[in-house]
Amino acid sequence: MSAEGRYAACCDVGGTKALLGLVDVDGQVLARERYLLGEQRDPQDMVEELAHRFRALATGAGLDWHKVLGVGCSAAVMADIERGIIFSAPNMLGSHRDVPFRQLLSDATGRPALIEMDAYAAALGEAWKGVGAGVDYFVYVVVGTGVGAGILMEGRVYRGWRGTAGEFGHATIDPNGPQCNCGRYGCLEALASGPAIALRAEGALVQGRQTVMSAMAGDAAITAEVVFQAARQGDEVALDVVRQTVEYLGIGLVNLIHILNPQVIGLGGGIILGGSDLLLDPLRREVVRRCGSWVDVRGTRILATSLGEDAALLGVARRVWEEFV
Amino acid sequence: MSAEGRYAACCDVGGTKALLGLVDVDGQVLARERYLLGEQRDPQDMVEELAHRFRALATGAGLDWHKVLGVGCSAAVMADIERGIIFSAPNMLGSHRDVPFRQLLSDATGRPALIEMDAYAAALGEAWKGVGAGVDYFVYVVVGTGVGAGILMEGRVYRGWRGTAGEFGHATIDPNGPQCNCGRYGCLEALASGPAIALRAEGALVQGRQTVMSAMAGDAAITAEVVFQAARQGDEVALDVVRQTVEYLGIGLVNLIHILNPQVIGLGGGIILGGSDLLLDPLRREVVRRCGSWVDVRGTRILATSLGEDAALLGVARRVWEEFV
Repeated sequence: MSAEGRYAACCDVGGTKALLGLVDVDGQVLARERYLLGEQRDPQDMVEELAHRFRALATGAGLDWHKVLGVGCSAAVMADIERGIIFSAPNMLGSHRDVPFRQLLSDATGRPALIEMDAYAAALGEAWKGVGAGVDYFVYVVVGTGVGAGILMEGRVYRGWRGTAGEFGHATIDPNGPQCNCGRYGCLEALASGPAIALRAEGALVQGRQTVMSAMAGDAAITAEVVFQAARQGDEVALDVVRQTVEYLGIGLVNLIHILNPQVIGLGGGIILGGSDLLLDPLRREVVRRCGSWVDVRGTRILATSLGEDAALLGVARRVWEEFV
Repeated sequence: MSAEGRYAACCDVGGTKALLGLVDVDGQVLARERYLLGEQRDPQDMVEELAHRFRALATGAGLDWHKVLGVGCSAAVMADIERGIIFSAPNMLGSHRDVPFRQLLSDATGRPALIEMDAYAAALGEAWKGVGAGVDYFVYVVVGTGVGAGILMEGRVYRGWRGTAGEFGHATIDPNGPQCNCGRYGCLEALASGPAIALRAEGALVQGRQTVMSAMAGDAAITAEVVFQAARQGDEVALDVVRQTVEYLGIGLVNLIHILNPQVIGLGGGIILGGSDLLLDPLRREVVRRCGSWVDVRGTRILATSLGEDAALLGVARRVWEEFV
């Protein structure tokens, strides 16, 4: 089937919102839409809404729906990617389990479909059109509500035995660290994710330290975004929280570098998108410092995403182009 | 070229001794020799001694040297494996650098040659004839004087950008831990290698704790072997040292499991060979405990080497068979 005039219908479904995009063979996003997910997380309703919005998006952009090559969906799932079955995806599908999501999506759209884990999708997208392009050994690390990674070896996803490779948010960084929502202590996710950053700031407030963050947050809870804003104003407490975050992320990245020796580590996710001006250069210095005498040998470059929120869209688009052409 | 009657000449060169083996196409070791390396570490002398001993070993076993398919050498090296150049190998070659070892070995033996990193060689050997056989995602961890790993994905070595993947002995396990010989703090190697185990036992002695280890070691320094012997007699100090070792190795393995999701982790090296009765079951329990709610998902099996000291020999033999047939 020729690629002429055809496109992939892709979505990246998060916990509260979904990003839709129609992507051509060159990785151009021809049309894009973001929408908030409702409270109801019935899989059948979800695929029907996706199908409806995909068609409307195509029509609005003057694209013929019959020219859709296939549909791809990225999400934070525990899944059998090959068979397209989502075992569990609490943020996306609530308590629904063992959902044949690929089949539902294909039935609703009338086109072949595939699913992909969000960190792997973003890694594939960056490897196609972003900071991982042309890189044989590439790791893409997502730092947001959670922390995860997609590992690529010569363009192929390193999935692991049951498809859960890259869950390095649950690597122990400090055995004496705070408890993680997985139940263990000192996981990277419990030290450097958005909620962990917010929690450390709250902790400083409870200790009575003077900071502009209380006024900034007002009645609302402190978020990582508030921490970053305060740090940009020179607030010492916020700067301390940022420094600690850099230190923990630095340990995590150096561990990845020693184990995987990637040429490039790409960084994305909400925390990086929202705080790269505060995090990136200090993180590079921390990695160099922690690599010690290894730094010349490893030489891994650390780069912020160049695709931003489109990374996962492009990753599933790439898979659609590879599998359905 | 037919495999009929042919064999691979393989060696595993360590810091003080070398193991030689002639290996047939089925992975049978037809003849084996171990010898101590001299103080002198001249590369030319070393390959000539290897060539001489290979020929003598073949003759002694009634094998025709002309039937040697190729020569393979495993060692703890920093090297360009493809070009066969050893950049640095302090234990094996002292201060010699940028040694074209593959070419030297080929010239000295008159056969095509290859070199391989020791942890990768052992991983390949176990994947061929040991605990990694038939396993798509296999990691082999060597715990000895150092700590390292070989990562296999569907039988292929995951080498990383500059061929240094698997150096997880220098992953940080405890940021507040002791200094490693790499200069950083709390590396797994500084907590769980043979010298680290011995050092922790010495530390307990310095604190004045009662232990049979002082009498056991006599005038000599305490070694990991002494710790294991004392632990087997129920010595509380030695048992504490073993328990801490299990804890640190447990953190390291769980981190590997989260990042790589292997089906099987094989364990080898001097510390495992010498202490598996004390380490293996507690380590499995520690990993289950630390995986928490992930344990059913991960399901990684932890198995001690079934090839022991032959693992690396068989790994280079496998590469010789793959590349030179």
